Amino acid sequence: MAGKGKVLLSITGFSPQRWYELLSAEREVVLEPDGPADPSIEYAVVWKQKPGLLAKLPNLKVIFSIGAGVDHLFADPNLPAAPIIRVVDENLTQHMVEYVLWRVFDHHRQGQLYRIQQTKKAWHEPQQRPASDISVGIMGLGNLGRAAAEALKGVGFHVNGWSRRPQEAAGVTTYCGDAGLVPFLNATDILVVLLPLTEATKGIISYGLLKELRRRNGLGGAVLINAGRGKLQRDADILRALDDGTLKEASLDVFEVEPLPKTSPMWNHPKVFVTPHAAATSDPTHLVPPMLEQMDAFERGEPLENVVDRAAGY
Amino acid sequence: MAGKGKVLLSITGFSPQRWYELLSAEREVVLEPDGPADPSIEYAVVWKQKPGLLAKLPNLKVIFSIGAGVDHLFADPNLPAAPIIRVVDENLTQHMVEYVLWRVFDHHRQGQLYRIQQTKKAWHEPQQRPASDISVGIMGLGNLGRAAAEALKGVGFHVNGWSRRPQEAAGVTTYCGDAGLVPFLNATDILVVLLPLTEATKGIISYGLLKELRRRNGLGGAVLINAGRGKLQRDADILRALDDGTLKEASLDVFEVEPLPKTSPMWNHPKVFVTPHAAATSDPTHLVPPMLEQMDAFERGEPLENVVDRAAGY
Ligand SMILES: NC(=O)c1ccc[n+]([C@@H]2O[C@H](COP(=O)([O-])OP(=O)(O)OC[C@H]3O[C@@H](n4cnc5c(N)ncnc54)[C@H](OP(=O)(O)O)[C@@H]3O)[C@@H](O)[C@H]2O)c1
Ligand SMILES: NC(=O)c1ccc[n+]([C@@H]2O[C@H](COP(=O)([O-])OP(=O)(O)OC[C@H]3O[C@@H](n4cnc5c(N)ncnc54)[C@H](OP(=O)(O)O)[C@@H]3O)[C@@H](O)[C@H]2O)c1
Repeated sequence: MAGKGKVLLSITGFSPQRWYELLSAEREVVLEPDGPADPSIEYAVVWKQKPGLLAKLPNLKVIFSIGAGVDHLFADPNLPAAPIIRVVDENLTQHMVEYVLWRVFDHHRQGQLYRIQQTKKAWHEPQQRPASDISVGIMGLGNLGRAAAEALKGVGFHVNGWSRRPQEAAGVTTYCGDAGLVPFLNATDILVVLLPLTEATKGIISYGLLKELRRRNGLGGAVLINAGRGKLQRDADILRALDDGTLKEASLDVFEVEPLPKTSPMWNHPKVFVTPHAAATSDPTHLVPPMLEQMDAFERGEPLENVVDRAAGY
Repeated sequence: MAGKGKVLLSITGFSPQRWYELLSAEREVVLEPDGPADPSIEYAVVWKQKPGLLAKLPNLKVIFSIGAGVDHLFADPNLPAAPIIRVVDENLTQHMVEYVLWRVFDHHRQGQLYRIQQTKKAWHEPQQRPASDISVGIMGLGNLGRAAAEALKGVGFHVNGWSRRPQEAAGVTTYCGDAGLVPFLNATDILVVLLPLTEATKGIISYGLLKELRRRNGLGGAVLINAGRGKLQRDADILRALDDGTLKEASLDVFEVEPLPKTSPMWNHPKVFVTPHAAATSDPTHLVPPMLEQMDAFERGEPLENVVDRAAGY
């Protein structure tokens, strides 16, 4: 490991164990910087690092986010200027696509209605529309949103997509920017949120936005699925929309505050399906090898991949 | 409508209204035969006809089943020898494929665990294996089974298939006949039953069969999904298998007795998900036009399509 830059591993909220083991196989890894100014640390691999921690490293060259999102990094007001690499990985994408298909099918095929009927021992068949009668709208047509769009199209849904800049995707009706938002929502029955959390997207999933979804549709209402970030949404607005019929149901993997507080009405709301920020796991077995490869490539003078655009915030 | 054979429409268990309207647009339709021997009736369109009803028609030429399965017809000991046409239709197939994907994803992504966690306000992420670590085995590689296999492969599952005669399907590991059954089950984590009900398949889903499924797998147990026919299974054996851990969970669309009696322990079993024989609706809007076309073609002397093999029983 001589001549190879040292790695600082800083994880909040879950165990760093497997990450440590896998990174250590090829590089020296420290969990806390050794003294206030350890010049041998060149890389940081982080999830919600302590604010100010990275600023103390005088020789930091590259920051690796353990997830696809990087909002957890920007929460640090003293984040150094080093390039930030985010996760773009087939395994993580596959998990997310499965989550989206799972939740879309459960709403489309009326899972909640059947579960209620079962408790009442009611043998009743509701009208069933094929997927081709339903439009799923994906907010965020990036790495995850595009993969989800393709899979949803593959199983027969009509798919709309919304992004910041104009994007194209085969068989997907695309919209972009502020001007495209309302037309996109007006054509959408099931809204799937796969946006990054930035200054521009914070709180975007508001009551007013949900009001624009199509409610007269083959599902008998509009559905929200958020697998992006909790602070994209206003929990209270979602509850209001569910309670007055603006939304029929919601599947939420993320929340304004995580873990979701025991006092949140989300937990026992009959129209909300809660998962604990588990839509797509960051599996170190899959994610550490490309991180180590990027460090090696960087030391050979090759360009970094999946670098975050700091101006855009994602 | 002169010169066109008359149609007898006989439906038990749901309203014949839409079927009547759509068939009547092109042919004379009767709901009860006019007298004991109405020679003008040449076609019967039926779901669970009264036993003996069809035998009274002296000039019956073709029998159309309203579903893909024809076991309901053979329940009549006096079924006349006229050719039987069953449903093979894209719309019905699409509904079934959606049901299978929906149920497979819900078991794969641990829907039941999350629903229990939610009632306990538990924020806990279980280990999540990608679809490619899971083998779905489909019993019955016919029209519906093949379509389900293709869709499951498309979203990343490993797929096995079992049929009566040797069959091939791209990317699917196929098995057939008695000799292939145990190897097929031994390689299967989630069993999807899409068999027809015949003398040979009655009661096939027994405790002994379920015992052969793979339980040490990425799901933490074996899962049964039956969307074929209720009499393929023994309800009591499924309950026993669920209670002793042979099965982890089951999604059942069909039952030995339908509607499922209020006294059945299936209704409030925490590991069973009940739907009321609703996996794939027979939608008259889609199914009547091809029936009318077949009648016309038959009268022009053209061959019938999707004719049931009476010896095989499907
Ligand atoms: N719940 C979980 O388990 C989990 C797991 C992984 C990731 N995530 C979340 O998923 C997010 C998306 O990941 P990704 O890899 O797909 O990101 P990505 O490739 O960077 O794609 C982001 C997409 O969002 C669009 N976007 C960004 N800002 C926008 C704005 N202001 N208005 C409209 N569209 C905007 C982008 O538009 P352009 O195409 O024009 O750039 C792009 O299409 C991550 O940021 C993370 O928060 C959640
Ligand atoms: N729940 C619902 O809403 C619903 C809706 C529609 C249909 N269904 C059920 O689904 C069934 C399948 O429909 P389909 O259109 O796919 O039928 P199909 O095209 O006739 O296919 C039947 C498949 O089962 C196999 N098979 C039959 N007997 C067998 C045996 N003894 N051992 C092993 N394999 C055997 C056949 O093998 P070969 O390939 O060798 O012939 C074939 O692969 C229907 O019969 C019906 O009962 C249920």
